[in-house]
Amino acid sequence: MPPRRAPFDPAAFRWAGVEEQAYKPRGGEPRGMGWRGVTRHTLVRAPEAGAAFELRYFEIAPGGFSSLEKHRHVHVVVAVRGRGRALVGDAVVELEPMDLVQSPPLAPHRWVCAGDEPFGFLCTVDGDRDRPQPVDDAEWEALRADPRTAPFVH
Amino acid sequence: MPPRRAPFDPAAFRWAGVEEQAYKPRGGEPRGMGWRGVTRHTLVRAPEAGAAFELRYFEIAPGGFSSLEKHRHVHVVVAVRGRGRALVGDAVVELEPMDLVQSPPLAPHRWVCAGDEPFGFLCTVDGDRDRPQPVDDAEWEALRADPRTAPFVH
Repeated sequence: MPPRRAPFDPAAFRWAGVEEQAYKPRGGEPRGMGWRGVTRHTLVRAPEAGAAFELRYFEIAPGGFSSLEKHRHVHVVVAVRGRGRALVGDAVVELEPMDLVQSPPLAPHRWVCAGDEPFGFLCTVDGDRDRPQPVDDAEWEALRADPRTAPFVH
Repeated sequence: MPPRRAPFDPAAFRWAGVEEQAYKPRGGEPRGMGWRGVTRHTLVRAPEAGAAFELRYFEIAPGGFSSLEKHRHVHVVVAVRGRGRALVGDAVVELEPMDLVQSPPLAPHRWVCAGDEPFGFLCTVDGDRDRPQPVDDAEWEALRADPRTAPFVH
């Protein structure tokens, strides 16, 4: 079996043969699950690769943000392009290229572009994983009551 | 649970709180399993993270190379520093930052630094995986007989 290769084009910040997808089919419902300006590139699919994990590249345009959500599976994120900011649990994390952050089980999280260029990150997850769910009422209120995390709650 | 963070230091090309380890305890036996100038940084350990995968950063100094080996588990490699060259199966692959290559099950592989600065790459593997083994006699002879792959056979 030949190796699978996806050469990188630094000018476009894209991989040959890897298709751009919508981040999610739609957004806005339920509360907090809205998003703006996010694309997804699935670099490695678990069953095709014969691996227990998947590797995705997400990119968030200036002014964009991912949905506010939680799930049991963990995210391992390595920033690779631009500058980002994230809500993870009740922490706010600044991200520059090659910074690593792990989002633990059931931690509410939202990724935001924090600069004038796109914010891109590699995100590895288990191939077998649960679906994202919105944060609950208590989480929503607590995050909104804290001025550090309030900007992530919408 | 707070997020785990490992901020990156671009000057050192290292992550805060991530310890440098030897690539392997020793090398040279059996045939082909020798290596030179390789370090390992385990960025994410499967059980600690609650994930099915592990994320490592390997760095190979100029003139260095990893062991020539194979195993059932796949490697997903994303180059991030310098220039590298790899034998994967019977293919020779050139690697520059952000290039992606997958090493399929049981493909013999060896990673080599191809420049004057260290070659570094992220490598994701299943947490539950088999041990590396040396290539067999037929693989050794076939790889040595092909002038493209012969430089990797030692």
